[in-house]
Amino acid sequence: MTIQILFAAQDPRWPQYEGPLRHALERTGITDFNLARDIAPEQVDYMVVAPNGPVQDFTPYKNCKVAMNLWAGVENIIGNPTLHMPLARMVDHGLTRGMVEWVTGHVLRHHLGMDAHIHGQDGKWRTHIPPLAEQRRVTILGLGELGAECGDALNYLKFDVTGWSRSPKDLPGIRCLHGEDGLREALSTAEILVLLLPNTPQTENLLDAQRLAMLPQGAIIINPGRGPLIDDQALLEALDTGHIAHATLDVFRTEPLPENDPYWSHPSVTVTPHIASETRDETASQVIAENIRRGEAGEPFLHLVDPKLGY
Amino acid sequence: MTIQILFAAQDPRWPQYEGPLRHALERTGITDFNLARDIAPEQVDYMVVAPNGPVQDFTPYKNCKVAMNLWAGVENIIGNPTLHMPLARMVDHGLTRGMVEWVTGHVLRHHLGMDAHIHGQDGKWRTHIPPLAEQRRVTILGLGELGAECGDALNYLKFDVTGWSRSPKDLPGIRCLHGEDGLREALSTAEILVLLLPNTPQTENLLDAQRLAMLPQGAIIINPGRGPLIDDQALLEALDTGHIAHATLDVFRTEPLPENDPYWSHPSVTVTPHIASETRDETASQVIAENIRRGEAGEPFLHLVDPKLGY
Repeated sequence: MTIQILFAAQDPRWPQYEGPLRHALERTGITDFNLARDIAPEQVDYMVVAPNGPVQDFTPYKNCKVAMNLWAGVENIIGNPTLHMPLARMVDHGLTRGMVEWVTGHVLRHHLGMDAHIHGQDGKWRTHIPPLAEQRRVTILGLGELGAECGDALNYLKFDVTGWSRSPKDLPGIRCLHGEDGLREALSTAEILVLLLPNTPQTENLLDAQRLAMLPQGAIIINPGRGPLIDDQALLEALDTGHIAHATLDVFRTEPLPENDPYWSHPSVTVTPHIASETRDETASQVIAENIRRGEAGEPFLHLVDPKLGY
Repeated sequence: MTIQILFAAQDPRWPQYEGPLRHALERTGITDFNLARDIAPEQVDYMVVAPNGPVQDFTPYKNCKVAMNLWAGVENIIGNPTLHMPLARMVDHGLTRGMVEWVTGHVLRHHLGMDAHIHGQDGKWRTHIPPLAEQRRVTILGLGELGAECGDALNYLKFDVTGWSRSPKDLPGIRCLHGEDGLREALSTAEILVLLLPNTPQTENLLDAQRLAMLPQGAIIINPGRGPLIDDQALLEALDTGHIAHATLDVFRTEPLPENDPYWSHPSVTVTPHIASETRDETASQVIAENIRRGEAGEPFLHLVDPKLGY
């Protein structure tokens, strides 16, 4: 019997996801399916949902086995009183891998001093040999899934990795610090600092003038986390004095970053356009297809949300 | 009793190695030593040597426990008929790690399209998301120690890695090809090509016009191996047509690369000044100190050369 799959995320996502979802379903071995945005509610077997999507009343979807959220955050769906089926959140392998690649790449770029060569194709043979990764101290603020995975990759490449989180953690190959004293220590040794903290009232402007001053002279800052983690004015001042040698920033308080923002024109700043962490349609589609395969095989669904915990 | 260590490499190496050697010896727990360039031969316990170094007659060094070469190549020493003590070659962890870092960094740089952002700080928000490493095919030509270690790191980062060597190899996580048919296949799938072959009559101009044409349109070439692997004129032509999108080159037929060489001025070439593979004084000194520690503790020496095999 044809499996009825309702796509109930926002309209602009349909052209992005239709192809990858069909492809992922077929690769999973599911061939007899109807993937559409308009299916009679009682016929729907599975639904792809999103916060603020077109379905706000789940009541008539009486035969739907699982609602699968397109994003990691479910705070705007889990409280819906009409939600009577299990809800799965998105755990996108692609988002994590993309972050690991971006962070590892930019840490290596600064570690190796690549910009001097990328900019300096002027016939001068500059034979400065960079130190080895094992002699380079990198600090990651934030040891959630993304911070831990990035730390793991940097540790594999033999960087001297320190990690910091608000509560104690224990990760192999990473010197894990926590709390306010730990933060001071984590900053004071950071030749390269990577920001991977969440955006909360506690982390806003975490990197202010005082904390920037704790970093060693010539430190490099890499922010693929959240824009508000940094006090922008304080960072620009620390870049002007040279206390911070360079900042590579992927996230900002306002995105797209306005054309006249001083970050664009500062010679010691590299702006990248929020490309480090992106839910990937291909890998996210694989997660959805796998859950539909599980539903058809009577196996337990992946990434189900616990309504009591809310995540 | 004071351990007598003769430094018998060329003069310019002494200021480079004296500090790191002293430091490495002390870190190994050896404190009572005399490290010098002039010690009565019969008093010498250990000697650091180099091809074409000041000691060519090893006869009077009757009590020397081991001669430790500063370089990996021993072809100019092993045949010396006066060499009566064991000879250790240099296996420098630092050289290998430096190569892994340089190759991984530049593969990630090209994979992520970093140059577009490093050059393009013009206020334009370019949200092109690069593919994941698992969707990126990288080929390494040469699967010796350096090629294998680089392949391992790229595989760890989930790149789709193919390796090629003249004789068959079997390395975990790497699709290993060999021979002339294997080379065609290895080239035809290479979005990013890394050259890590040795310089032999067989590998000279390996990457000529015909083999460059086997690469996919828009391929990227990274050469930290040897300059003569590439037919320079053929590469420049392939860069001009755009068949090769970019070349990042660390080694050249003539070094330093002359100021008027067309590689310097070509917009699709990045020249780096032979920095990818360098014996590191710090790590090489650690190997020497460890062998002296072993000699004092009566443990077997590391990296001894087999006189019959010559390496």
